[in-house]
Amino acid sequence: MASHAQVSVTAVSKVIRNAYGVSPAMRDRVKTAIEELGYRPQAVARGMRGRTFTIGLMLPHIRNPFFADILDGLTEQLAGTDYRAFMIQGGATRKVERLAVDALIDRQVDGIIMVAPLASKARLEEVAQEKPTVVLARHERSSFYDSVYDDDEAGAELVVKHLIELGHRRIAHITHQDDSQAQPADLLHNIRAATYERVMREHGLADEIAVATSFYHEKGGYEGARELLDRDPRPTAIFAGADQAAFGALAAVYEAGLRVPADVSVAGYDNTHLAALPNITLTSVDQEGSVMGGAAGKLLLERIEGRTSAVRFSVTPSLVVRGSTAPPAS
Amino acid sequence: MASHAQVSVTAVSKVIRNAYGVSPAMRDRVKTAIEELGYRPQAVARGMRGRTFTIGLMLPHIRNPFFADILDGLTEQLAGTDYRAFMIQGGATRKVERLAVDALIDRQVDGIIMVAPLASKARLEEVAQEKPTVVLARHERSSFYDSVYDDDEAGAELVVKHLIELGHRRIAHITHQDDSQAQPADLLHNIRAATYERVMREHGLADEIAVATSFYHEKGGYEGARELLDRDPRPTAIFAGADQAAFGALAAVYEAGLRVPADVSVAGYDNTHLAALPNITLTSVDQEGSVMGGAAGKLLLERIEGRTSAVRFSVTPSLVVRGSTAPPAS
Repeated sequence: MASHAQVSVTAVSKVIRNAYGVSPAMRDRVKTAIEELGYRPQAVARGMRGRTFTIGLMLPHIRNPFFADILDGLTEQLAGTDYRAFMIQGGATRKVERLAVDALIDRQVDGIIMVAPLASKARLEEVAQEKPTVVLARHERSSFYDSVYDDDEAGAELVVKHLIELGHRRIAHITHQDDSQAQPADLLHNIRAATYERVMREHGLADEIAVATSFYHEKGGYEGARELLDRDPRPTAIFAGADQAAFGALAAVYEAGLRVPADVSVAGYDNTHLAALPNITLTSVDQEGSVMGGAAGKLLLERIEGRTSAVRFSVTPSLVVRGSTAPPAS
Repeated sequence: MASHAQVSVTAVSKVIRNAYGVSPAMRDRVKTAIEELGYRPQAVARGMRGRTFTIGLMLPHIRNPFFADILDGLTEQLAGTDYRAFMIQGGATRKVERLAVDALIDRQVDGIIMVAPLASKARLEEVAQEKPTVVLARHERSSFYDSVYDDDEAGAELVVKHLIELGHRRIAHITHQDDSQAQPADLLHNIRAATYERVMREHGLADEIAVATSFYHEKGGYEGARELLDRDPRPTAIFAGADQAAFGALAAVYEAGLRVPADVSVAGYDNTHLAALPNITLTSVDQEGSVMGGAAGKLLLERIEGRTSAVRFSVTPSLVVRGSTAPPAS
């Protein structure tokens, strides 16, 4: 190996260990030689010397296209490094979420990035005291981990104001519920719902507030919209707290024989790539999942390198207006 | 620990190592005590004694809802064991696909399950000689790894015959291309495309064969359908080789001012959960991703336990007829 690269064994060793004292040119030469020879140091063996170069990413599931954006951003951020992201699936209960994070710790990952909507803040801090940790999509302040989240209040305000400006008054909302041990005010779905109610009240529409409590997935949105459409008078606009729920809401509107947006406007949140399809054309809030994934990766590497102060990275969302929202029928 | 469970240290050790000679009742008692104490053996430390209890799953990306079905089936299969599935993202080039699998091997996973459409058979066998391996969604015969795949010929035949029976003659197909080093005949998209052409010929429709070569994702289906709809006369039915491409094809049909199915029937493949939404209602082929994921997990554990003979597990698909297909306008 060292003879192939025509460099010293010490230099090769330094490059492999990512140590200081190697010039960029030498590093490139050694890395090229390593690649040509198909040589791969055993990550776990390196782990016994300190690092596994493994980033553990916990996601509740992989059905939300928004998570794919996060993973892509993270993968791109890590591309120039020796680190690799490994995803483990959490799930719909606190127990499986906890076991998934435990499994990451057991595998001696160097750090953890997690979308963990169900855990208590105390649990997040417990994890963060074992491993460098970045928490995605939650709003708590903690001095033990970094946070990357969307400004959900700003995003929800954009949607509700957009619908009010179009002339809607009977604007309904579909929210999410789960068995989280977090403080309700720290969870994105509660922030979006509370903002909806606040903006409605601020515009004299307190009496029009109508919330269906369901789930942020297609079936949840479908059932939530059915409940809302059954009301008399029915809403002229539905703000679903997530695109996945909005897709289900669209289905319910069509199934009821109503048109979008002529009879009912529908808006979502996440601006997943399906929202742009011409047969869906969903007005939605863009929170730049790939930017969030990239930021999470960058912050985690900083923590692994030794930073201990907590950083909060907030993405400012924007509204993408498409064909699913229009003024109400007069 | 042992005193808490009121069992011998030897029994605890045996349970942790999954050794034989422990009664089910004793195993339950020990496991309960382990859980109550919050005790977790370090998976990597166990790894130094032979196993890491880690299954590496390589997926090209997580945007296809069909992959979510596979992961759910695998997760369920592993639920009663000490094994956990870790997903690593491959990508759109042979190089990143290769690096992703290398990263799994480096982390000393106990076995690998992979959706690796780009690798050569020789490469798959190289991996299989390093780690117990199950290959998903490819059709090669190998004595080194297990294969779990859908009977793509049967599935494609179901779709094309369905459209012919409805009375369609100008049936077009959207297929996929990539820079795979596999033998073309072993790749699912080529099998689906070849079957389309065979069934068309068998029904005297050789002159009506029209194939758009694009990609199995929304944008690919959109562009493929635009190309097909530009032909004169245009097709009355489009069989997209994957649901994701079919979603894009639906978008192109609507954008062209045409109706589904009155002007153009559209069918897909994978029966992803979005296909069932009332505003999509896509006729599609169900290949039971969760069954495939579960089978892959079961076969891999058998290999880890020592089986060396190769097993091929083929899922027989079924057609789910929905509102996107109907007889052509007369």
